[in-house]
Amino acid sequence: MSYMKLDELNLNLDAYSHALAILGVDEATIMPEGGGNARSNAISTLAAIAHKQASAPEIANWIKKAQNSSLTEDEAAGVNEFKRVYEQNICLSADFVGKKTQTSMNCEQLWRRLRPTGDWKAFAPALKEVVEIARQEAQIRSDATGLLPYDALIEQYDPGTRMAHIDPVFSTLKEFLKGFLPKALQKQEIRHGNKPLKPLNGPFEIKHQRALGMASMKQLGFDFTHGRLDTSHHPFCGGVPSDVRITTRYETSNFLPALMGILHETGHAQYEQGLSKNNSHWPHNKARGMGLHESQSLFVEMQISRSPMFWEWAMPQVSKHLGETVLQGFDVEDVLAHVNLVRPGFIRVDADEITYPLHVILRYELERDLISGEIEVEDIPQAWHEKMVEYLGLETKDNMKDGPMQDVHWPAGLFGYFPSYTLGALMAAQQWEALLKAQPETPEQIRSGNYSAINDWRSKKIWQHGSRLSTPDLMKQSCGQELNPDAFIRHLKSRYGG
Amino acid sequence: MSYMKLDELNLNLDAYSHALAILGVDEATIMPEGGGNARSNAISTLAAIAHKQASAPEIANWIKKAQNSSLTEDEAAGVNEFKRVYEQNICLSADFVGKKTQTSMNCEQLWRRLRPTGDWKAFAPALKEVVEIARQEAQIRSDATGLLPYDALIEQYDPGTRMAHIDPVFSTLKEFLKGFLPKALQKQEIRHGNKPLKPLNGPFEIKHQRALGMASMKQLGFDFTHGRLDTSHHPFCGGVPSDVRITTRYETSNFLPALMGILHETGHAQYEQGLSKNNSHWPHNKARGMGLHESQSLFVEMQISRSPMFWEWAMPQVSKHLGETVLQGFDVEDVLAHVNLVRPGFIRVDADEITYPLHVILRYELERDLISGEIEVEDIPQAWHEKMVEYLGLETKDNMKDGPMQDVHWPAGLFGYFPSYTLGALMAAQQWEALLKAQPETPEQIRSGNYSAINDWRSKKIWQHGSRLSTPDLMKQSCGQELNPDAFIRHLKSRYGG
Repeated sequence: MSYMKLDELNLNLDAYSHALAILGVDEATIMPEGGGNARSNAISTLAAIAHKQASAPEIANWIKKAQNSSLTEDEAAGVNEFKRVYEQNICLSADFVGKKTQTSMNCEQLWRRLRPTGDWKAFAPALKEVVEIARQEAQIRSDATGLLPYDALIEQYDPGTRMAHIDPVFSTLKEFLKGFLPKALQKQEIRHGNKPLKPLNGPFEIKHQRALGMASMKQLGFDFTHGRLDTSHHPFCGGVPSDVRITTRYETSNFLPALMGILHETGHAQYEQGLSKNNSHWPHNKARGMGLHESQSLFVEMQISRSPMFWEWAMPQVSKHLGETVLQGFDVEDVLAHVNLVRPGFIRVDADEITYPLHVILRYELERDLISGEIEVEDIPQAWHEKMVEYLGLETKDNMKDGPMQDVHWPAGLFGYFPSYTLGALMAAQQWEALLKAQPETPEQIRSGNYSAINDWRSKKIWQHGSRLSTPDLMKQSCGQELNPDAFIRHLKSRYGG
Repeated sequence: MSYMKLDELNLNLDAYSHALAILGVDEATIMPEGGGNARSNAISTLAAIAHKQASAPEIANWIKKAQNSSLTEDEAAGVNEFKRVYEQNICLSADFVGKKTQTSMNCEQLWRRLRPTGDWKAFAPALKEVVEIARQEAQIRSDATGLLPYDALIEQYDPGTRMAHIDPVFSTLKEFLKGFLPKALQKQEIRHGNKPLKPLNGPFEIKHQRALGMASMKQLGFDFTHGRLDTSHHPFCGGVPSDVRITTRYETSNFLPALMGILHETGHAQYEQGLSKNNSHWPHNKARGMGLHESQSLFVEMQISRSPMFWEWAMPQVSKHLGETVLQGFDVEDVLAHVNLVRPGFIRVDADEITYPLHVILRYELERDLISGEIEVEDIPQAWHEKMVEYLGLETKDNMKDGPMQDVHWPAGLFGYFPSYTLGALMAAQQWEALLKAQPETPEQIRSGNYSAINDWRSKKIWQHGSRLSTPDLMKQSCGQELNPDAFIRHLKSRYGG
C-alpha cells in the first residue's frame, strides 16, 4: 500500500522530470528568443511544484511503512535509493532554498555581465554571498547525513565519494602530471619536429559534418529510435532515457571539435539509453551520478575515440562524408597529432587530456578550502594565480576573465561538482583496463567498428546497475578495484610519454 | 486574497499547459519513434495532475469570494471566464472521465486499424459505445449549464454558439451551395476550356519551399522572435502565445499545398501571437474558441491568400525562392486556377472552399441527430450516402473508408467540434467585409504586401479581446452584425460565380 503510494509519486515525479528535460532541450536547441521569459516561468513553476511534491512530509511515513512491508529485492533497492534522495530533498527549508536560488541567480547574472571585462572587484561581493550560503548548506547537509560538510555537497553529485579518498588520489595525480606535462610537451615537439600540423582541407559544410557525426554515433551503438542529434551553443546530453537528445556545435573551418563533442556526448547518451527499462520511474533505475556519467563520456571520447584503432575505422568515414581530399596524405599519426594535441592554456573547457585534471584539481582544492573556511573569496585570485603557475606555468594575476571568472559553477552555487570531471577520467581509464583484461580482442573490434561486445560489457558492468550501488561500490564491482589514478597514469604514459 | 489564490492557480495551470503544448509539438515534429511510450505516459500523467488541480472543490469558494471582493474590470473578466471554465471542468466525475477516455481511446485505436479497409461492421460497435458516452456527457453538461444537450457540447469549443442559430444559417448555406456548385463547376470549365492546368515546373526542393513559406509568414506579420516553422505529418498550430509553433508538410512535385498550409497556420498563429501579454496566464486572455480561431486561419488562407491581390505580391516571391522558370508564362489567373480549383470529392480535408461547408454540414446534421437520439450509429452509412449524393453528387454506399470512416473526430469522442470549421469560414468572410468597409485601401495594401493596417484592425477587433466576450458577442462587436452566411455567399459568388 505504502509502496504503491511511492510508486504513484515516482510516476508523477518522472512526468515532471520528463517535461523539464524536454523543455530544457527545446530551449537550448530551437526555441525562438522571445519565448524565453514564458519558458523560464513555466520551468521554474513546474520545478517548484515537483520539489514540493517530492518533499511532502507524509512521504517519510510511506518510506518507513514500505521498508517494513514485504518487498522484492528490486523494490527494496528502489525504496532505499528513494529514501536517500528524499532526505537530500527535505533537509533544506523552503526559505533556505528560496534564499539560495535568489543569491546564486543574482551572482550568475552579474557574472554573465562582468565576465567579459573580468571585473573581479565588482563580482567578488556577490560570490562571497554565494559562498556564505554554500557553507551554510554544507553544514545543514552535514548535520542531516553525518558526512563532513564538503563531502555532503559532493554526495549530491557523486554518492559515496569522499574527500578522504579524493585527496590522496588527486595528490598523486597532481605530482605525476606536474612532472609529466613538460616531458609530454617535449616528446610532442620531437615528434612533430617544428612543423605545423598538417592542415585540414576545409571548409566543412555543417550538413556533412552532421552526417559524419551521426554515422559515428550509429557505429558506436547510439540508438536513433530513442534519441537525436541537434545543435546548441553549448554541447550537452539531455532528454530522457527513452529519448536522449545530444547536441554539438559546428565550426566550418575544422570538423574535429564538433565530431569529438558528438563522441563525448554519445558516451553520456549510451549510459542513459542503457539504463534498465523496468520501473524506470524509480530513482534506483536512473544514472548513478556525475562522476560515473563523465566516465561514460570520457570512455568513448578519450579511451576509444582518440585512439589509433578508432581512427583506422574513422578516417575512411571522414573521406566518405567530407570528401576524399580532406585527409589526403594523412596517416593515423597525423590525425592523432590533431586530436591529441597538448597545449597548456588558461581555459578548462579547452584543455587537453593531460592539463584538464590540473584545472580540476586547482578548483577542487580551492572550493574545498572555501567551504571549510580555510580561505575566503578575497584569497581566490592570488591562490588561483599561484596554482596556475605551479601546475601549468601560466600567470593569471591580471587576468580574472580567463582565471577565476571563467566558469559558471561557483556563481551558480555548484560546489562539489568539479571533482566529478576528473574522477570520471580516472574511472574511464580503470574501466578500459578492466575491459581489456576481460576482452583482449577489444582493440581489434574498435579497429573494425564493432562495438557489440564492448557495449555488452559496459551495459553489464555499469549501465544496468542504475543507482543500486554507490559510485565506489559500483567501481569495485565492475573493475575489481577502488578508484585510483594508476590506470589513468598508465594511459597518459602510453599515449603521450611512450 | 481569494483572487491571489486564483492567480497562483492560474500560474500553475499555465505552466502545465506550456509543458503539454511543447511536449506535443516536440512529439509531432522531431521526437524519435521510440520515445513515444514514455512521452504518452508523461503527457497523460501531467494532464491528469493539471485536471485534478483545476477542478479541486475548494476553488468554488475562491471564485465566490473573489467575485464578492473589489476587483478591477480586468480582474473581474478573468474571474468570470475562469468560473465558466471551472464549471466545465467539474461537471464530469473522475469516474466518468476515466470511462470516456478509455472508450474513445479504444475506438480511436480500432479506427486506425480498420480505416484502411473500411471495415464498418467491425468498427460500428466501438463507435456505438462512444456515442452512448457522448449522449451521457451531453446530458450531464446540459444539466450543469441549462443548455440543450448538443449545445452543451458545442459550448466547449465555441462558447455562446447555439444550434438555434446554426440551424438556419447552415440551412440557407446548404441550399445556396447545392445550387451554386454545378454553376461554379460549369463556369470553371468554360474558363479553363478543356485544357489541363498549366503545369508547375517542379521538382521543388524542400529547403526552397521552406524559405518561400517563411518569407510569406514574415510578410504577413508572423513574429519569428516568438515562433517557428517546422515540419510534421499533419500541419498544425501549437506551442504557446510567446512561442507559437506552426508546421506544414512538403511535396516536392507541387509547392502549393505546403505554402497554402503555411498561410492557413499563419492565420492561427497571428491570433495567438496577438493575444494580450498582460496576465496571459488567466483564461480571459487566451483565444476565444475553435470557430473564431478557424476564422483567423481562413481569413489569411481564403480571404487573403487565394485572392488575385495576394498573388501579385507572391508570384515574384515564388520566382525568387523556387526559380524563374516555375511560373514562366503564368499570369495571376493561371495561378488562381491552381489554388482555387473546385473539385467535389469524398474527403473533407482535401475539399475546396465551396464543397468544404457541405462536408461539414453533413457531419453537423448527423452528429446533432446522433446526440438527440434521432438516428443511431447503424443509420450512419445510409444517411451519409444519401447526403453525399444530394449535396455533392457522390456515392459512398460501399466506400466506408472515404465515407463515415474518414475522420478521427467521432472515434475520438469529439462531438460539437465539426461546425467550427464552417462557422470560421463564415466569420472570416464577415470580417473581410467589415475590414474592407472600414479600410477600403486593404486590397491595395495586400497587393504591395503591406499588412500593418490589416493586422492592426484584426488585433483591435479580435485578438486583443481574448476570451472576454462570447463568440457571437465578439462578432457583433467586431463586424456590427450577427453570424450569417451572406458575406460568405457574396465571397463565393465573386470568386467562383461571377
